[in-house]
Amino acid sequence: MSELALLTVGIRSEVRRDGTLHLSLQSTALNDPGPDEVVVEMVAAPLHPADISMLLGPAHLASGAITGKGEDRTAVFQIPPERMRPLATRTGKSLPVGNEGAGIVVAAGERHEDLIGKPVAVMGGGMVTRYRVVPARNLLPIPDGVPIGNGAAVLINPLTALAMIETMRKRGHNALVHTAAASSLGQMLNRICLQDDIPLVNVVRRPEQVSLLENQGAKYVCDSSSSSFADELNAQVAAAGATLAFDAVGGGKLAGQILSAMETHCLAQVFDYNRYGSKVHKQVYFYGGLDTRPSELDRSYGMSWSVGGWLIFDELERMKVEQLDGLRSRISAEMLSTFACEFAGELSMTELLDPDTLRVIAQRSTGAKYLVNPRKPLT
Amino acid sequence: MSELALLTVGIRSEVRRDGTLHLSLQSTALNDPGPDEVVVEMVAAPLHPADISMLLGPAHLASGAITGKGEDRTAVFQIPPERMRPLATRTGKSLPVGNEGAGIVVAAGERHEDLIGKPVAVMGGGMVTRYRVVPARNLLPIPDGVPIGNGAAVLINPLTALAMIETMRKRGHNALVHTAAASSLGQMLNRICLQDDIPLVNVVRRPEQVSLLENQGAKYVCDSSSSSFADELNAQVAAAGATLAFDAVGGGKLAGQILSAMETHCLAQVFDYNRYGSKVHKQVYFYGGLDTRPSELDRSYGMSWSVGGWLIFDELERMKVEQLDGLRSRISAEMLSTFACEFAGELSMTELLDPDTLRVIAQRSTGAKYLVNPRKPLT
Repeated sequence: MSELALLTVGIRSEVRRDGTLHLSLQSTALNDPGPDEVVVEMVAAPLHPADISMLLGPAHLASGAITGKGEDRTAVFQIPPERMRPLATRTGKSLPVGNEGAGIVVAAGERHEDLIGKPVAVMGGGMVTRYRVVPARNLLPIPDGVPIGNGAAVLINPLTALAMIETMRKRGHNALVHTAAASSLGQMLNRICLQDDIPLVNVVRRPEQVSLLENQGAKYVCDSSSSSFADELNAQVAAAGATLAFDAVGGGKLAGQILSAMETHCLAQVFDYNRYGSKVHKQVYFYGGLDTRPSELDRSYGMSWSVGGWLIFDELERMKVEQLDGLRSRISAEMLSTFACEFAGELSMTELLDPDTLRVIAQRSTGAKYLVNPRKPLT
Repeated sequence: MSELALLTVGIRSEVRRDGTLHLSLQSTALNDPGPDEVVVEMVAAPLHPADISMLLGPAHLASGAITGKGEDRTAVFQIPPERMRPLATRTGKSLPVGNEGAGIVVAAGERHEDLIGKPVAVMGGGMVTRYRVVPARNLLPIPDGVPIGNGAAVLINPLTALAMIETMRKRGHNALVHTAAASSLGQMLNRICLQDDIPLVNVVRRPEQVSLLENQGAKYVCDSSSSSFADELNAQVAAAGATLAFDAVGGGKLAGQILSAMETHCLAQVFDYNRYGSKVHKQVYFYGGLDTRPSELDRSYGMSWSVGGWLIFDELERMKVEQLDGLRSRISAEMLSTFACEFAGELSMTELLDPDTLRVIAQRSTGAKYLVNPRKPLT
């Protein structure tokens, strides 16, 4: 390890008690890797919606102050006072950013020296940084012939999509509803479900996203902004036979509408009146919260239903080793097809800390996902 | 069976397509009991909130028309047009009323002839009737020394309260929150939890109910109508260490407030910031819906949480025979203590079908539970 520079520099996000958000670069010393760890030099880290939420919180981006150059670059934004309360647990803490990325192994603990020099996908938090020490189990080697940038986003979204299917099977469901279905994750889930012959109802939020998914072979797509949405959702949920949904939207009436469509379908298959509704369990999991309003549940779908949080990291912890290995093998084999992800551009860490850039990123537009390349020179 | 009159008469509730609710008495022929069945002559059937909802639906009780005498008694009420839609699945169906009661076994299938002449508690729907054929497993013999009226409500509420504790243990929780806690069920659950040393947070809806429960030994009671409710709930949930709630209210913000109190307590016990909240699973089960508004969930309690329906009948079906036998034995032994229930009065079936009486019953007041005695002469 003696030949290695033991310093790294990475992006930090800090909410301060005075109601400001500070984005900056921070230098920290790297620990030597333990026997089961490796040091990865990061080459590409994607900004997923969850990373953007972590980076920017609810800051007001219209007026930002930027100071310093290179490693001293700092961007400061105001946070609306009424948005501070939910941030209490992170206030005053300088948080690293980035759930995953791709890089080159530059040093390794004794059990993993064979990985040195190899390109790897890596997950574990704080990935928008020059170097990162991680447990080797957080890596997935990028196969020969796959450009390293194509390995930047092959863990979080692919594992999330595959874990949704594992959850579906484990809980005895046979079909899925997915919301915000035009997202990178949604398009990936659509490819998996087509391949595996799993009926999938794609709920999108804009008319043009219907054709986007239909052009990719999706059988069931409905647009929540359409005036006939409830009818379309009912018809598609019935045709798919879906009793499980993964919802990235969270707020408003959508989750309740999905449960209601499921219950309507289940009741159509029983003849006796049961005041407690159908006995088939109907489930909506929230895995995101694009709509920050409260979820409104009118409970008009009997008694056999549940909604709640679903977190990929907890799912991965609960998974058996063989099961997880199965998912990892599939990702390796299909990295350039099923699990491919497109990016709108590549930024250095200082380019990211520019108010104009941040405002673009904050829109989290479909098809406009950016990569940060921590090796790119700081300006 | 030849010596038995094979006719019964019981209360029926029917929502009609024209937007009216018809309550009437209906004569039907009784089937002979099968080898595992018995015929019970009903003596007392309680009107729980769930029975009242079934009986009256959302009918407007201020102006009702009553016609006929004796078995021909009929009461008709209007249903507000905007309340008809959720009733679609029951419209046009004449539904029997009453989840449980007590009576005397007057005939039995060959395997249960020893029960003839014995007083029993019984559950299974349609209990507000002269005679009812039920499977013997739906009975619980009323022990010597217990007046038959005291066995009228010893199945639904006692099994519900005990099944809540079973759910708590099965899901790995150690304490409970219960809402509408001044109800018969709530007072019963309080007695069980005191006996079994289970911390219980009682959430009531009016100030006078605080002392009602405190006088019965409750340690944690908070009043959701109080201006300091959120603080009291937080403090009591933390002191009890509760991560599971059974909620009879359903609508509004209460379920979310409970989850938020649980999460605050869980986060106070971890030092590292985790943007996804605490890893401890927090659960609210809706088992009733006294507040018919939508439930509002602001999802400010991390990712490890769930809300959903909880139905005693499904729980009983899922229970192992030995487990259910254990609960039944406890109810038998403590019928006059832990599981005692008080009644405000006893009505004949025709007395029940009186608009003034129905208006009193529709209030579902704490401490004003009525019994129907189907043997009482019809007027």
